[in-house]
Amino acid sequence: MTTPKPPAGTIRAPRSAQGTTPGATLKKPARKRAPGRRPTSESADLRATLLDAALTCFVRKGIAASSLRDIATEASVTPALVHYYFGDKAQLQQAVVAERLLPVVGQMRAPVMQAEGDVASLVAGFVHGIGGVVAQHPWLPTLWVREILCEGGALREMMISQVGPMLPKMMAGRFAAAQQAGELNPDLDPRLLMVSLIGLTMFPMASAPIWRQLFGADDIDFNDLRRHTLVLLDRGLELDRAK
Amino acid sequence: MTTPKPPAGTIRAPRSAQGTTPGATLKKPARKRAPGRRPTSESADLRATLLDAALTCFVRKGIAASSLRDIATEASVTPALVHYYFGDKAQLQQAVVAERLLPVVGQMRAPVMQAEGDVASLVAGFVHGIGGVVAQHPWLPTLWVREILCEGGALREMMISQVGPMLPKMMAGRFAAAQQAGELNPDLDPRLLMVSLIGLTMFPMASAPIWRQLFGADDIDFNDLRRHTLVLLDRGLELDRAK
Repeated sequence: MTTPKPPAGTIRAPRSAQGTTPGATLKKPARKRAPGRRPTSESADLRATLLDAALTCFVRKGIAASSLRDIATEASVTPALVHYYFGDKAQLQQAVVAERLLPVVGQMRAPVMQAEGDVASLVAGFVHGIGGVVAQHPWLPTLWVREILCEGGALREMMISQVGPMLPKMMAGRFAAAQQAGELNPDLDPRLLMVSLIGLTMFPMASAPIWRQLFGADDIDFNDLRRHTLVLLDRGLELDRAK
Repeated sequence: MTTPKPPAGTIRAPRSAQGTTPGATLKKPARKRAPGRRPTSESADLRATLLDAALTCFVRKGIAASSLRDIATEASVTPALVHYYFGDKAQLQQAVVAERLLPVVGQMRAPVMQAEGDVASLVAGFVHGIGGVVAQHPWLPTLWVREILCEGGALREMMISQVGPMLPKMMAGRFAAAQQAGELNPDLDPRLLMVSLIGLTMFPMASAPIWRQLFGADDIDFNDLRRHTLVLLDRGLELDRAK
């Protein structure tokens, strides 16, 4: 590996990764390096292109079903070149996690970290943050369902060991503290509240193609979803209204 | 096809199917029928065994990855026998839907249909109903994630065309009516409320292996989840408590 790699677990997105749209076509032809030639900024570009191609394949057909050959084809290079840059599939997957996925989690975490101390700001920061991140990276819910939520998903372990402490465990801890201070409904479970938040944000975004078709709901966008979610979290169903 | 088939779309579980546990081993050896012999109750038993074996394979490795041969192996019969009973894979899948999945949806629907006219009963009926069904059929969330929620899932179309009108569309319609009558928080979207309900019930059950490990939450069972969910829906976060 000749180009510098950000350390695994880095949560701040490098500027170059923040606008990454792996759905975009990756037409830039790779030029073969002459043997022994030192890597240049050109090779860093190619490395980024290969990471994007890998992410595109992972999203389109799943991580288990994506071969180095598929990824090479996606990037219009030879499999040997992918192998040269990343070694085997496991190492490539690790690089995609470190340089494409964890930066996105970092983007999701930023508004939560900037939130004021109260639960309202924390929840609003999370709901707005996750909506903004999915708007920027629309492939995220697809990958989340297949590789984390599905039994046997290739990223479930990464979710638990790396993402878990960054975001959900931190938030559940703040919910527990707020509850102890009397600032949160005492009949809720702080850990389940974190699960509820994912179920009210990431899940509806992941299932949008289903409920849009089922309800003919093309009129509902993710801003409507965010408003609905915040109202539900804030006040509940208000079933006693009419009484 | 010599044994009678319940019509596709049947929603009431036949008594024989209600206790079906496809995770159970299916050791009963199939006896080959003599050519020309009329089918007996024995062949109906075998047919049920094959449906259970198919469901077991679908849950364990996914519908796309389950071949007739896998299903035959699971049931300890020859692939020819599976073919004899169900024809091809598509027909077998259709039979599993009609005779194993739609009856489960019927079980989920029953407490909702029995609910009184008000939204509180409807919501409680749904939350309790889905919890009871998953307790009885613990394979359901796994199949739901892989075959409905995953892009390209084999049951997504079935969900939209067959399950949709039975349960979610009916409930969203009742939410809309209650809202018009002033009995439901007017700032919620009745269709998104149905999505929220799935996100607060089925999603937490499907993701339980993840959050149990992440939070070390083996102390939380599905009764706790149900209580938490009903409190959240009823009253929200109650962030103003301390003020």
